[in-house]
Amino acid sequence: MNPPMNLMGSVLLTDLYQLTMLQGYHDTGMEEVAVFEFFVRKLRPGRGFLMAAGLEQVLEFLEDLHFSPEELSWLASTGRFSKDFIASLEALRFTGDVHAMAEGTVFFPNEPILRVTATIAEAQLVETRLINLLNLQTLIASKAARIKLVAPDKLLVDFGLRRAHGSEAGLLAARASYIAGFTGTSTVLAGMQFGIPLFGTMAPSFVQAHDDEMLAFEHFARAQPDNVVLLIDTYDTEAAARKVVALATKLASAGIRIKGVRIDSGNLADHACQVRKILDAGGLPYVTIFASGDLDEYALRDMLASGAPVDGFGIGTRMDTSSDVPYLDCAYKLQEYAGRARRKRSEGKQTWPGRKQVYRSYDIDGRMAADVVTLDVDQISGGEGELSCEPLILPVMRAGQRLAAARTLDDIRSHAADSLARLPEPLRQLQEPYDYPVKISGALHELAEQVDHYRRTGHER
Amino acid sequence: MNPPMNLMGSVLLTDLYQLTMLQGYHDTGMEEVAVFEFFVRKLRPGRGFLMAAGLEQVLEFLEDLHFSPEELSWLASTGRFSKDFIASLEALRFTGDVHAMAEGTVFFPNEPILRVTATIAEAQLVETRLINLLNLQTLIASKAARIKLVAPDKLLVDFGLRRAHGSEAGLLAARASYIAGFTGTSTVLAGMQFGIPLFGTMAPSFVQAHDDEMLAFEHFARAQPDNVVLLIDTYDTEAAARKVVALATKLASAGIRIKGVRIDSGNLADHACQVRKILDAGGLPYVTIFASGDLDEYALRDMLASGAPVDGFGIGTRMDTSSDVPYLDCAYKLQEYAGRARRKRSEGKQTWPGRKQVYRSYDIDGRMAADVVTLDVDQISGGEGELSCEPLILPVMRAGQRLAAARTLDDIRSHAADSLARLPEPLRQLQEPYDYPVKISGALHELAEQVDHYRRTGHER
Repeated sequence: MNPPMNLMGSVLLTDLYQLTMLQGYHDTGMEEVAVFEFFVRKLRPGRGFLMAAGLEQVLEFLEDLHFSPEELSWLASTGRFSKDFIASLEALRFTGDVHAMAEGTVFFPNEPILRVTATIAEAQLVETRLINLLNLQTLIASKAARIKLVAPDKLLVDFGLRRAHGSEAGLLAARASYIAGFTGTSTVLAGMQFGIPLFGTMAPSFVQAHDDEMLAFEHFARAQPDNVVLLIDTYDTEAAARKVVALATKLASAGIRIKGVRIDSGNLADHACQVRKILDAGGLPYVTIFASGDLDEYALRDMLASGAPVDGFGIGTRMDTSSDVPYLDCAYKLQEYAGRARRKRSEGKQTWPGRKQVYRSYDIDGRMAADVVTLDVDQISGGEGELSCEPLILPVMRAGQRLAAARTLDDIRSHAADSLARLPEPLRQLQEPYDYPVKISGALHELAEQVDHYRRTGHER
Repeated sequence: MNPPMNLMGSVLLTDLYQLTMLQGYHDTGMEEVAVFEFFVRKLRPGRGFLMAAGLEQVLEFLEDLHFSPEELSWLASTGRFSKDFIASLEALRFTGDVHAMAEGTVFFPNEPILRVTATIAEAQLVETRLINLLNLQTLIASKAARIKLVAPDKLLVDFGLRRAHGSEAGLLAARASYIAGFTGTSTVLAGMQFGIPLFGTMAPSFVQAHDDEMLAFEHFARAQPDNVVLLIDTYDTEAAARKVVALATKLASAGIRIKGVRIDSGNLADHACQVRKILDAGGLPYVTIFASGDLDEYALRDMLASGAPVDGFGIGTRMDTSSDVPYLDCAYKLQEYAGRARRKRSEGKQTWPGRKQVYRSYDIDGRMAADVVTLDVDQISGGEGELSCEPLILPVMRAGQRLAAARTLDDIRSHAADSLARLPEPLRQLQEPYDYPVKISGALHELAEQVDHYRRTGHER
């Protein structure tokens, strides 16, 4: 069975219960406006902050939302839904509003990064895919940001497609890590799709397919004369470095310059030191050393602290799977329906009701000082001390239409760099814990009490 | 920028270095046959065995492999490749052979589960996507198999799409967990694409959108009369269970029977006990209890050991991200080129050379006893004691064509169930470690020595 062509955009990327609930809303005529917000409940160990990412793919999904004839007839064939309801899905489009934090913004638990305001059917239907998209890219951008903070001046390349969880995970990990400050990716399709700079070297199989390692290097160099980065650890790293020195003279006469070498196994820091000496002694101080293999922010920190002469890193599996924290404790929850604020009270999963705004204040050096989560009001009253600060949640879609063209990836990346530059010092470290101050406003506390009171008594206070 | 239509099948789901190496093979006229094998280097803590999955998607990818005109012109525009090379890609298709372990087979480190025999260009180009597909589904099937072993007689439903890493991860996690023995999934598109049974209940937002929980239950029941599973933890679980009892009578007069309740928060085992008592006392012994929320094989084991009266489980995030082990230590490595066995010697990453076969022997009860990894030969010589046993690696594609139609998912699932039934007792437990015996044959040791000798000396021994 072959997948349909546009499987990544399918409206059926949803949980069955969304559709059964839609049938319920349909049958009971519940068509009022609902407000849902996406937020993270708490940080998991190993993260002091998160970086928002994935909004662009959410907006693309919402713009294109529809049921295809094939999907409708398949739904009908399941016998789970009424004809009347299936017919109503044919015209369904996303016609709601979206407010969101810009991609690349640093955020914390209880701060919504996306708000959907739409008929309850539309807002409910998209829950699964919205969480799926925001969880993934936010997860990877947050991991990549930690790596960028540890090695701000190094060449950082995403190498993770092979162990990313499927094609979309690999593609979007390339995007999310580029947003967070990576230099580029090895994923070719991410270059074509998103314009992300591509980097690549060679694999051991190229060396092994030749009987002679030196010949393999020469063949590779002549085939890619502008991008000669040679993998030197297939057999014996230092011996291969000496071959690189010998080869450099031969290639120089052909006008080819060796750009770098890559080490992918063993003690990377030790090998880098030895290789650097060999290259320097051989008159190749300009040849860079690129390291890869089981790397993450902790390995980079240790390697750089040891003074290892590494110029760039290929970071794969541990970033693309966010291996120490492979998911966010995130949710997309109903905050208001039919003009009345709502609140989930399940144990350990209580939510703050209503449409929210996050204000961020900065200290005199431009570093983040504190956030306040409060109710969103069109006019900022200034009632709370910090309310005069920057609001982070802005309108991006109205009645199903974007309010502005998609931001360029470089714009987003530059906003992310600015966000990281403004992190308070303790958040720039890998150590934990440091609780950045996020205050829940008095107005929000009061609304939560009102909602609870109404639910208990059926009356306003 | 919108993704192209068939992004999941794109040949550019590859690392840049595959293409730069292909340019090297092209320029130097290296067109001999290469043999690559996919295997896992070692088990990570938390796994005693793995279950092979993903072959079907690999075969689909290989069958469809081609460069589209858009992809070719984009590659040309990068300026990285010669015109001549780009032109050669236009006709490139996968024309090689594939041998593989059947999906659903249990396997161990150093046992290849897939072998590609093709020109080196074809075999190299597909490396990234093959690892990407096999890593993901094998990862999830292996996790799901552990859950199935702990709760063999319970209803097990995949709930993980929302926190799976992207759309493909969610879809394929539904497939892989179904193979491993799950009852079904909540992912609607997996129902449409793969025919996997769908399960779903309701979300708290449905309850919250109503002013009254009881009314929400009733609306839901009337909209889905054949599948009434009510979420009872939005506010107060036991109070909601009592509402279910009250509602049951009312619905009975309309011919609607409540099928089950779902609990998604708090101490699931405690709530299940209380709710069971309330339902039984209310004359509803047939109403099942379904639990979800942060579940994995350990949580299920503990809950079942406590005697909690739970009939089914929704397992999401921790399975779909394989959160304790989010990647395999796997590789796809060159084992032979131009008729000569090859071997990678990088520190900690040595491989066994040559085309391999895995033979599995069983004890008198039909349980797995031991495996031998040896060289694949057309005629089994019987030279090694266990060679008379079942070979696990079989031909599935020849010259780019499948040797048989795709296996049905139910066939694969039944093979997986058989594999799990044949696990030795220690591997059925979550405890570790237990090293199942996997022997590397004398012939393989000898070949490795020959390869090393040849590389050192340039001569056969």
